[in-house]
Amino acid sequence: MRIDLHETAMLLENSDKILLLCHAHPDGDTLGSATALARGLMQKGKKVKVDCSDAIPKDFSFMFEGLEFEEFEPELIVAVDVADLKLLGKDYEGKYTGKIDLCIDHHGSNMLYAEKVCLEPDSASAAEMIYLLLGIMNVEITPKIASCLFTGVSTDTGCFRFSNTTVRTFEIAARLAKLGADTYNIIQVFFETKTKTYAALERLALESMRFYFSDKCALICVTQDMFRRAGSDESEVDRLANLPRQVEGVLVGVTMRELKDGNFKASVRTHGDIDASAICKRLGGGGHMGAAGCTLYGPKQTAINSLLKEVQAEIDAYIID
Amino acid sequence: MRIDLHETAMLLENSDKILLLCHAHPDGDTLGSATALARGLMQKGKKVKVDCSDAIPKDFSFMFEGLEFEEFEPELIVAVDVADLKLLGKDYEGKYTGKIDLCIDHHGSNMLYAEKVCLEPDSASAAEMIYLLLGIMNVEITPKIASCLFTGVSTDTGCFRFSNTTVRTFEIAARLAKLGADTYNIIQVFFETKTKTYAALERLALESMRFYFSDKCALICVTQDMFRRAGSDESEVDRLANLPRQVEGVLVGVTMRELKDGNFKASVRTHGDIDASAICKRLGGGGHMGAAGCTLYGPKQTAINSLLKEVQAEIDAYIID
Repeated sequence: MRIDLHETAMLLENSDKILLLCHAHPDGDTLGSATALARGLMQKGKKVKVDCSDAIPKDFSFMFEGLEFEEFEPELIVAVDVADLKLLGKDYEGKYTGKIDLCIDHHGSNMLYAEKVCLEPDSASAAEMIYLLLGIMNVEITPKIASCLFTGVSTDTGCFRFSNTTVRTFEIAARLAKLGADTYNIIQVFFETKTKTYAALERLALESMRFYFSDKCALICVTQDMFRRAGSDESEVDRLANLPRQVEGVLVGVTMRELKDGNFKASVRTHGDIDASAICKRLGGGGHMGAAGCTLYGPKQTAINSLLKEVQAEIDAYIID
Repeated sequence: MRIDLHETAMLLENSDKILLLCHAHPDGDTLGSATALARGLMQKGKKVKVDCSDAIPKDFSFMFEGLEFEEFEPELIVAVDVADLKLLGKDYEGKYTGKIDLCIDHHGSNMLYAEKVCLEPDSASAAEMIYLLLGIMNVEITPKIASCLFTGVSTDTGCFRFSNTTVRTFEIAARLAKLGADTYNIIQVFFETKTKTYAALERLALESMRFYFSDKCALICVTQDMFRRAGSDESEVDRLANLPRQVEGVLVGVTMRELKDGNFKASVRTHGDIDASAICKRLGGGGHMGAAGCTLYGPKQTAINSLLKEVQAEIDAYIID
């Protein structure tokens, strides 16, 4: 059943022991939203726990400072920013199948697996929804809550650069800044700091960039050799995904990375009406209109060719339209 | 004489023919501020002209759409975002020496060369000041004016990433978004699009990056040869300025570019309490705490050494503090 933010507030207010679940491979939005909501609910005297099947990366540990979770039998289990039950992670998927009472999410692709779903697909981040929800619940937005929410708002919009950014995003960001969010340091950590190994990897990746189809497609391919030369590894590869699409005239940007078994993971980013998920679906992957992924089988040139074939089909269809 | 925004509004309202001057090598803030102010003054029935000693780069041409400037004998000559008379450019410096009636600026290093100076060093951009000034003057902020101002607000803060970004910056950005600024396209053009020649130049620049003082300083030096190899030129160099400082642990990031005469322009970006303008002032330049610039005399290694000497002094002073 779909419910709105006011009904969501009532549901939360009527429960005393609340478990908040984040998605696996946690990011700034799922963690920022859950920790902000946890802090708000604690202000209201609730027992709350935030949980995630994966470890919390160190850049997000500030969100958990001063939070102490007791063990309890939850009266309400809430998934935050989790579009699909399987995104909770392998262990948690089985554990919570049929047990999620409420999902608060902003993904249009939400699988509606929870009993009640508060879904705003036009919201750039779950954090925007939590900001409004805390307002409805009369929670005092402390500087710490503001920082948790600002992390979600900024990371899910690429620091206000992605097309999901709305007037409301800017307005909420301004409110959170006013309420004491540590905007400068948050942005430095997530957008303006490169490790030396990442900087070296980026340089090698940019050198590897090749153009296809009258420069409408740009492709970079990060090999295991490049990871070695840069002293880097797969954990630093995500930030490369946006680079090929940034080149003027490029409609399809592809970032491939070689896996240890010699196969490749590809991340496809597109502009405008070109459907990245259509490209990746034909190769066994999936995703969204503007960002999708798939696995490709090596060797390298075979992997590149199989992807380029689908890219070309999509570009041709777009140009004929 | 220093005057505030209210006195500035009065001065502008009491003049009918107003010339607005931008700095040479014009950027989003000087042009966005001047064109927004011009449009506001035209609403009030004034004759206005915006002028700059250099040609307007094509990315900024939208600011001038629909603006038609007549020739007139100005009653008031106003420099916008121009910290020093010489920044008007060689030809204009002589022409306007002793003739600037008013300067509206946010550079702490402003040389106070104008008869009246409206200076807010804590303002992240001149555009923030113009936004407030237009409010005082009861100008209707049209979507076009909002877009001109948003360009200044976003470009002078590196899209809200630099330390000059304040709560007020976010608030004004939100207001401008609400008033119809074309935020998405502005951000795409200035932050998310690279020409192929810029992408090539960036690659060469990153290859040239060297580290000094236990990696606290990173320096890139773009030579005329690199411009040639990338098919690029000086107009594309500004965006490189932020790259060295992004590397983890770097406190002072330096981007140098070789001029056609064999000398160098340096752009210095710092973190925390390290004063970029102090470094540059000792070399005849100036700017802000976190971002400043100066000219260095070649050959290349001489230029690098003279700058590094001042960087070291500033880092040493900082570490002793």
